[in-house]
Amino acid sequence: MIDVPGLGLLKGRLAGRMAGIEPFYVMDLLARARKLEAEGCSIIHMEVGEPDYITPQPIIDAGIKALSEGRTHYTPALGLPALRQAIANFYLDTYKVNVPADRIIVTPGASGALLLALGVLINPGDEVLMADPGYPCNRHFVRMFEGQAASISVTEADNFQLCAEHIDRNWQPNTVATLLATPSNPTGTIVSSDEMQKILNAVSARGGCTIVDEIYSGLTYGHDHDAVSTALALSDEVFVINSFSKYFGMTGWRLGWLVVPEIYVDAIDRLAQNVFLAPSTPAQFAALAAFEPQTLAILEQRRAEFERRRNYLLPALQTIGFNISSTPQGAFYLYANCSKFADDSYMFALDLLETIGVAVTPGRDFGTNHAENYIRFAYTTGLDKLEEGVERLEKYLSK
Amino acid sequence: MIDVPGLGLLKGRLAGRMAGIEPFYVMDLLARARKLEAEGCSIIHMEVGEPDYITPQPIIDAGIKALSEGRTHYTPALGLPALRQAIANFYLDTYKVNVPADRIIVTPGASGALLLALGVLINPGDEVLMADPGYPCNRHFVRMFEGQAASISVTEADNFQLCAEHIDRNWQPNTVATLLATPSNPTGTIVSSDEMQKILNAVSARGGCTIVDEIYSGLTYGHDHDAVSTALALSDEVFVINSFSKYFGMTGWRLGWLVVPEIYVDAIDRLAQNVFLAPSTPAQFAALAAFEPQTLAILEQRRAEFERRRNYLLPALQTIGFNISSTPQGAFYLYANCSKFADDSYMFALDLLETIGVAVTPGRDFGTNHAENYIRFAYTTGLDKLEEGVERLEKYLSK
Repeated sequence: MIDVPGLGLLKGRLAGRMAGIEPFYVMDLLARARKLEAEGCSIIHMEVGEPDYITPQPIIDAGIKALSEGRTHYTPALGLPALRQAIANFYLDTYKVNVPADRIIVTPGASGALLLALGVLINPGDEVLMADPGYPCNRHFVRMFEGQAASISVTEADNFQLCAEHIDRNWQPNTVATLLATPSNPTGTIVSSDEMQKILNAVSARGGCTIVDEIYSGLTYGHDHDAVSTALALSDEVFVINSFSKYFGMTGWRLGWLVVPEIYVDAIDRLAQNVFLAPSTPAQFAALAAFEPQTLAILEQRRAEFERRRNYLLPALQTIGFNISSTPQGAFYLYANCSKFADDSYMFALDLLETIGVAVTPGRDFGTNHAENYIRFAYTTGLDKLEEGVERLEKYLSK
Repeated sequence: MIDVPGLGLLKGRLAGRMAGIEPFYVMDLLARARKLEAEGCSIIHMEVGEPDYITPQPIIDAGIKALSEGRTHYTPALGLPALRQAIANFYLDTYKVNVPADRIIVTPGASGALLLALGVLINPGDEVLMADPGYPCNRHFVRMFEGQAASISVTEADNFQLCAEHIDRNWQPNTVATLLATPSNPTGTIVSSDEMQKILNAVSARGGCTIVDEIYSGLTYGHDHDAVSTALALSDEVFVINSFSKYFGMTGWRLGWLVVPEIYVDAIDRLAQNVFLAPSTPAQFAALAAFEPQTLAILEQRRAEFERRRNYLLPALQTIGFNISSTPQGAFYLYANCSKFADDSYMFALDLLETIGVAVTPGRDFGTNHAENYIRFAYTTGLDKLEEGVERLEKYLSK
């Protein structure tokens, strides 16, 4: 039986996992925001988790060239050899880390990478440690494979990240893996290289695997030399997820990658063949241009602009009363405590949208750990819009 | 512990499901074929499961236009509304079936559609009935969700398809669904409209769901008015999987669709958001051109060419001794009994490749039901190549 809103219980079958897989609550807000816009309202979008920029022109041009040349057939399941090599070169050039191309798997987005990693690791009942707040799909993927996400509440005092102590304290007999994201969505905070090494050691000492989501790794700000560049610099045994979406600005193309320990390549190949057949061919040919100097120059300009936006928005929000105690060092998010203004951040977000046309993402999209006290601001819109948003917020809050 | 070929048991964790998810054996043959080609050998490719044609030019042009216009951001998880409507129009125009756009979900390939359908339906331990031989990913997807594929052996006498009697005979207390493919890979055979209705009734009478894979539905030959056009003409409760890959020639773009009963749309939306975020944006804009008269004219020419190839290859193979008792009416495959020539079709396929440079797919890629007696010929290469292949086979077999 399925409980259909408005219709009651209808005859039908629904897998148990679907009870644990929640929608993105921000989608309701987004739908409402679009409706308001259609009615002529001006909406400041600070809820959107994708860069406002379109894909850099050299990547688009490479995509167009590939299509003009008729590159429309399947590629190997693990991706174009030339692209896997280009990613390996990128690790060497940018991070001075040697990652052999045959450990690099091109995937349909970071989502595809997460599916493959968890698919080869998680048995029913297995537990995966992860931070709350965190990217909601992580726990939903674990649930999809009949595993259990063990959400560990992290706070400002933890820099909103797991540390080795969390691993020690929370590891259970059925725990098999730890999932980290650095920089994190929704908090933008980073795991330091030192702490990452301690975490890798703690997990490894228990015979577990560490999966690190580095999809925002190109988007870091400031010159914190302690910040880890990639967990691959510390271990060959770690699973690393990355993406062409955020730093490289290729969201809609759905292309990412996964680096795995060498002994997993064969199993990942089998799973990828069966689940995806192959990643998108035009996207892969386009992505070959992602590492060219001309593209990287554009990406660095964009990164600098994100940094300017963060440098404006963080103190501006703090000044009008939002509590953001740490300085987020990456991604394009600020996770703000709004408990001074409201008891329920979801209702608060709805009211901000209806009253002043400011769209933000409620904390409940990222877990249950004091989620009602937080909203996420994304600085994926221009400085002028951010200023307009802050102005509207200031007026609203001072009433 | 993982058993790594050549290295023995290595420390590592591997999910149990991976023991049930086999590689495509044809990949070994394909790798060997490419090596032989690199050494200068001439290989006739009759193993490849994708059209030899590149994507029709109007679709490529639409993709290029979308990229030129900067269409590189995410679309909604269920797909571009305009594309969902275009698919609905296609059902109405081509099959005279009314399928509301809001029941049509755009997916990353038919693989994505199968994942979503099984993801919302299958609990651990649930059984899904399917034909053996059949597309191997079907049983692997069921295994991925911790369900059990109940493979039912079908033969030439069954036209290699399930019928209502199979459902009656094989339904178990833990059976929840039946999966059919029409036209079928690897056999090219079709389920008649009459039989489809009986199957739908039999499954429905037991409270189960029917999933119909129609990815080859545009590729049928002859004028068999008894052949079902789409199962959607018979029921609103069926799950139908389709694809832009085969008939529309868009394999590398990774785009398909899924039609679901209305009450499942919300659950599918949640799962799609979490697992895929969205299908490829450039691919979706390109696919908008797939239903234009100009494109359909190209596709019909190609369909006619596939029919000519089938009409040549089927009697040619029969004449030289392969046993293909029914006349496959769709897809681009012939499933040939080769037991007259060999006891083990895998070794036979290897020998054909090494000795005469003819690549085919061994039966073991499609199940275990007398798989050692069969090979699959794909007519995804030009008539001249097919003639050359048959000539080589004739010489080889007459020795």
